[in-house]
Amino acid sequence: MTEQRMRARELGIRIGRLEPGQYNAITDVPGIKVGHETIIRGEGPLVVGEGPVRTGVTVIWPHSDGSIAADPVYAGYHQLNGNGEMTGIAWVNESGLLTSAIAITNTASVGVVRDGLIAYDRDRFTYEREPDFHLPVVGETYDGWLSDINGFHVTNEHLYAAADAAKSGPVAEGCVGGGTGMNLHEFKGGIGTSSRRVAAEQGDWTVGVLVQANYGMRHSLRIDGVPVGTEIGFDEVPSHTRETPKEGSIIIIVATDAPLLPDQCRRIARRATIGLARVGGNGNNGSGDLFLAFSTANRGMFAGDTYAPFAVQSLQPDAMTPLFEATADATEEAIVNALCMATTVTGVNGRTSHAVPLDRVRELMAKYNRLAS
Amino acid sequence: MTEQRMRARELGIRIGRLEPGQYNAITDVPGIKVGHETIIRGEGPLVVGEGPVRTGVTVIWPHSDGSIAADPVYAGYHQLNGNGEMTGIAWVNESGLLTSAIAITNTASVGVVRDGLIAYDRDRFTYEREPDFHLPVVGETYDGWLSDINGFHVTNEHLYAAADAAKSGPVAEGCVGGGTGMNLHEFKGGIGTSSRRVAAEQGDWTVGVLVQANYGMRHSLRIDGVPVGTEIGFDEVPSHTRETPKEGSIIIIVATDAPLLPDQCRRIARRATIGLARVGGNGNNGSGDLFLAFSTANRGMFAGDTYAPFAVQSLQPDAMTPLFEATADATEEAIVNALCMATTVTGVNGRTSHAVPLDRVRELMAKYNRLAS
Amino acid sequence: MTEQRMRARELGIRIGRLEPGQYNAITDVPGIKVGHETIIRGEGPLVVGEGPVRTGVTVIWPHSDGSIAADPVYAGYHQLNGNGEMTGIAWVNESGLLTSAIAITNTASVGVVRDGLIAYDRDRFTYEREPDFHLPVVGETYDGWLSDINGFHVTNEHLYAAADAAKSGPVAEGCVGGGTGMNLHEFKGGIGTSSRRVAAEQGDWTVGVLVQANYGMRHSLRIDGVPVGTEIGFDEVPSHTRETPKEGSIIIIVATDAPLLPDQCRRIARRATIGLARVGGNGNNGSGDLFLAFSTANRGMFAGDTYAPFAVQSLQPDAMTPLFEATADATEEAIVNALCMATTVTGVNGRTSHAVPLDRVRELMAKYNRLAS
Amino acid sequence: MTEQRMRARELGIRIGRLEPGQYNAITDVPGIKVGHETIIRGEGPLVVGEGPVRTGVTVIWPHSDGSIAADPVYAGYHQLNGNGEMTGIAWVNESGLLTSAIAITNTASVGVVRDGLIAYDRDRFTYEREPDFHLPVVGETYDGWLSDINGFHVTNEHLYAAADAAKSGPVAEGCVGGGTGMNLHEFKGGIGTSSRRVAAEQGDWTVGVLVQANYGMRHSLRIDGVPVGTEIGFDEVPSHTRETPKEGSIIIIVATDAPLLPDQCRRIARRATIGLARVGGNGNNGSGDLFLAFSTANRGMFAGDTYAPFAVQSLQPDAMTPLFEATADATEEAIVNALCMATTVTGVNGRTSHAVPLDRVRELMAKYNRLAS
Repeated sequence: MTEQRMRARELGIRIGRLEPGQYNAITDVPGIKVGHETIIRGEGPLVVGEGPVRTGVTVIWPHSDGSIAADPVYAGYHQLNGNGEMTGIAWVNESGLLTSAIAITNTASVGVVRDGLIAYDRDRFTYEREPDFHLPVVGETYDGWLSDINGFHVTNEHLYAAADAAKSGPVAEGCVGGGTGMNLHEFKGGIGTSSRRVAAEQGDWTVGVLVQANYGMRHSLRIDGVPVGTEIGFDEVPSHTRETPKEGSIIIIVATDAPLLPDQCRRIARRATIGLARVGGNGNNGSGDLFLAFSTANRGMFAGDTYAPFAVQSLQPDAMTPLFEATADATEEAIVNALCMATTVTGVNGRTSHAVPLDRVRELMAKYNRLAS
Repeated sequence: MTEQRMRARELGIRIGRLEPGQYNAITDVPGIKVGHETIIRGEGPLVVGEGPVRTGVTVIWPHSDGSIAADPVYAGYHQLNGNGEMTGIAWVNESGLLTSAIAITNTASVGVVRDGLIAYDRDRFTYEREPDFHLPVVGETYDGWLSDINGFHVTNEHLYAAADAAKSGPVAEGCVGGGTGMNLHEFKGGIGTSSRRVAAEQGDWTVGVLVQANYGMRHSLRIDGVPVGTEIGFDEVPSHTRETPKEGSIIIIVATDAPLLPDQCRRIARRATIGLARVGGNGNNGSGDLFLAFSTANRGMFAGDTYAPFAVQSLQPDAMTPLFEATADATEEAIVNALCMATTVTGVNGRTSHAVPLDRVRELMAKYNRLAS
Repeated sequence: MTEQRMRARELGIRIGRLEPGQYNAITDVPGIKVGHETIIRGEGPLVVGEGPVRTGVTVIWPHSDGSIAADPVYAGYHQLNGNGEMTGIAWVNESGLLTSAIAITNTASVGVVRDGLIAYDRDRFTYEREPDFHLPVVGETYDGWLSDINGFHVTNEHLYAAADAAKSGPVAEGCVGGGTGMNLHEFKGGIGTSSRRVAAEQGDWTVGVLVQANYGMRHSLRIDGVPVGTEIGFDEVPSHTRETPKEGSIIIIVATDAPLLPDQCRRIARRATIGLARVGGNGNNGSGDLFLAFSTANRGMFAGDTYAPFAVQSLQPDAMTPLFEATADATEEAIVNALCMATTVTGVNGRTSHAVPLDRVRELMAKYNRLAS
Repeated sequence: MTEQRMRARELGIRIGRLEPGQYNAITDVPGIKVGHETIIRGEGPLVVGEGPVRTGVTVIWPHSDGSIAADPVYAGYHQLNGNGEMTGIAWVNESGLLTSAIAITNTASVGVVRDGLIAYDRDRFTYEREPDFHLPVVGETYDGWLSDINGFHVTNEHLYAAADAAKSGPVAEGCVGGGTGMNLHEFKGGIGTSSRRVAAEQGDWTVGVLVQANYGMRHSLRIDGVPVGTEIGFDEVPSHTRETPKEGSIIIIVATDAPLLPDQCRRIARRATIGLARVGGNGNNGSGDLFLAFSTANRGMFAGDTYAPFAVQSLQPDAMTPLFEATADATEEAIVNALCMATTVTGVNGRTSHAVPLDRVRELMAKYNRLAS
């Protein structure tokens, strides 16, 4: 039986006062494409190197016009808690530039995916002025509770498949791509996305968020302020993680078409914390809470002569405030979408990560007077 | 008529699952003293240099054994949004040491209070090995909506008075000390404090928080998840800031007796964001959201020879998680205490900042099913 | 007898391969003005509050068109070692904007000068859209070995005088303004400046540096690679600091007309370390080595509507490399200029800080085959 | 004909006033082991995936007692210029802990080596309390001018070989391990190491440095202040990089037995810049100048109960100053050792990177009066 899953909004949950974009997804920011490759193989006891496998790769293209190294965008990074990995950040921090697609996978496969992005660029793109080297951005969260993580099952082929499959429009959520084997507040988690529109008189911008959510204790889960986590006990919905507690992580990617400089992207990245905090993320010690924000507005920075100045667009500091609100709200909703769209998954050693029961979520929203009419 | 004000807990609000300490205050961390000097003078139209004045200074002593420069404690700093000032942070960041008392005042008086702490140290303490110089820690939020801030009314005498008045035990909250003229989510704000106890089997530590809260829009205010800000409209409780919107700031000081190294203090400071986010702080552009955390556990670091190693106590990374929860919850409650304890104040040009009506707060907590029985 | 002092270049010292600008000063960057107010009063034994006084204030205006708060420039900050103070940096780091003139003074007078810059702005400028508050940038180094630093002799009037005296063209160096009472590698130090021109085909930019130099041990002093410090012993030129060793600090301000974004300014600020390291600065523990870089190229950022995008100019990452070289070389020469232009000064308790003997410098440059022909 | 190479000290070069340890190597810090695996294969034209190959891996073990994840040491990170990669830094920055061996390789092989360290840990170590996941530290510099870098020739086997080969005592320098295909100031570069002893009365500590040096333009090269780079022209010693200029990078690893906390390690890492600057490194835009410092003094941090405080040793801030000097001097000499020990190498397409001629170095040191007698 496949459970019928729904996004937060379909359940009557309304987070914040801003409206989402067309798809309520990171792809509402024009030009962005997302692709998933999901790897599900085997059942039963863990045999390292064989399986069971519940993992994958998700790729986000900041634009759809070829190599990002040849035509980068501005970006900024923030970490709430650094018990995780995101490669390529030294150069993002230094240059303010995102010069690769963004890939997200499991903790033990960061390297293969990172080197793979170099190979992918070599294989798929040609250059007028080829970059000497690439410093790809690859993030991770840990899926070893459900998957044979130390079996190193992700290969270049999976990365290529995810990168090639990327498209605009609706984004698959829940147990897909890098999110396949993840847990969230001791329910099943995975990929979630959401977006917000900033009012026309405040710039008419879109902010989109995609999360790979794999963190948190049950008790701290809140949906739009409602203490769902304390209401749904372990007798009602078990969490095998109780016996082998594994704190996880969350990767948050924020995109916008607002014309932000690198410093301003960094400010946006820092606001992912706001949305995460409202759902119940404390940045626990075992968590890698790594956030990357980028703006698609400024392009063609490498088009001219090396030493020629070029113009970019920016915003006044005060124009950041509505973007902060949009970031916080879209982050909160993206996490709730990951939770609500994920399905129950059984993995290594028969361990089961249970989806949150959506009827109970709706019931609790009503009990606490928070259900949108 | 003086309004009867109450702290959050007296109103039936229960934030989080941990218990507060004896005073539910930063002073629950042994050795810490807090002193306020409140300056209220004049009424009516603003005459720069004359008044009206609604300001003050608050001083926090990290211990009660003389000069902090001679016997510092470990500390760490984080800024959610840097539209504010906290002096002394270059040295806190470099050395991991807090080498002065902490003072909080209004934006235009940071300098006089900062130099004043140097003079105070010269006047009040004697040394075996005198430090060459002092780099005092002074933070601020902006009270120019109610007070003649550009009249520079704070003097050395006010600082000395606050520093000398400091004591352990209960801490005055609301419109006192540095918090006298502050606004919070478009109600009256000011000083608030709270504390949490970490369970004995997780270390038996205390975390205390003191805030000078002066930030936020009405609509974003939430108390324990309840949307109080959207429920109490401007027709019910006016906010003159509507005509002359001034975004404010929040200074958050976190103290603990847990034996933390400087890096670990920095991790604690970063979690102040969690509590702030839950009340409705987004770190808006106009806000100086500056957080300092310190640990009182390690002392006597300057007692031995300059080149002799000395022992300090620390904790494993995993032991940070309960401290993060304590920090987030105590921060959230300290802000709500600032809100609930502040009284209505009229200042320059007859402007009035209204206290939140406590009966309405209680009513709304009940409406959303969040009132503790 | 006034010693005849000369700048490094007049002595035949040629640092690096780039040429300086017209004045070989920070004022070679168009629009920049520098003003000094020097305070010299009294002789003999130290009486705190009376003197002797050997101190002052230096003010740098990033442009000459009124309030910097109304028309800021991009800036970035770096600290090699944070045993010092520079106010206003939280906002520089957050916004990437320099919103005030830069003042440099002694350690104990940072506060009065900081509040004074707020008053100065209130008194001297009028606004169409007045900023709510100011977060002025004030740096310091310690002159308590020669001056009654704890007597707090700097007042608003001194700041106003320095700010009003600022002008373009040649900049007074050595024992002037904030540099009056400073020591450098155990000789007399103070203010120094230098500039470099980046080649036309690499952008045709100017980089100017101003230092308030007050750091370092004798033995580590090198001029263009020549070990001057180990050659001039304490028997030849005494350093009373030997008995009461006081490590000092260095404030380095870098300005350029190259169109840099905030992140790029920060990269420039980080290169001040390169020039400092070559002269012999190790960022010793007692030193506040605080660096601020700004670009005058982008202006008028607050001219349009709050939410309207605006265009700014930037450079490709690879175009930074020649600016790094210019920054390193101009920093090195500015420090040597501070050393060579400072004169012998006697201060509190008859202590004397000796100028480096220029004939010996020239002799040593020749001995090590480094004198330009 | 194999050229006879010598270390700086054998050539009569004496950098700084401190003495090196027994091996003048990072292995002078007790417990540290270094292993190299060098991969040299093929000649002639570049065929991607086939060769020629001039690359390798170098592994540094911070101690010799099994898994570093089970028994980590304190560490701190600094980047002068971030055009490079070092994985694992998010966790180093967050926790202050180095929890893996350090590997250094070429830019395109960071991923395979990073995942390989996870596999190595799984294969070689057993645990009482196994860590959930690993976040290995792997740095890189670019060898694509001499080697088929996009052919991805480094495998797990090479990593295992380097890790297993690690030993204490003398360290091979020049064209070995990760340094095999590197260039330095447009001569041949690679691996270099050096150490310094801090005086007994200042703590009796050892500081050791290892560099993988692959940066810099010819003209900026200085040895102990002597302008070697401007003296040896391209007619005398060619640099094919002239036609296809590739700016490189430098990884600097600093180790000490001084009892430093994480913040203090970070201060040490920042001083690597000082030594690099003196040799002629400006942190050019194309360079990944990434520095990691660690202290071997505090161990057993995971030995006790999760929530039990434990004692570690630290030093007063003022005790850092001699360690800064040791770091700067050992870094400078390690780079010069990499230069002097590297041999001429011919790689892809017959490109040759020439070793610096040692007789000329000695001659120039004499010309500028800097040769130790």
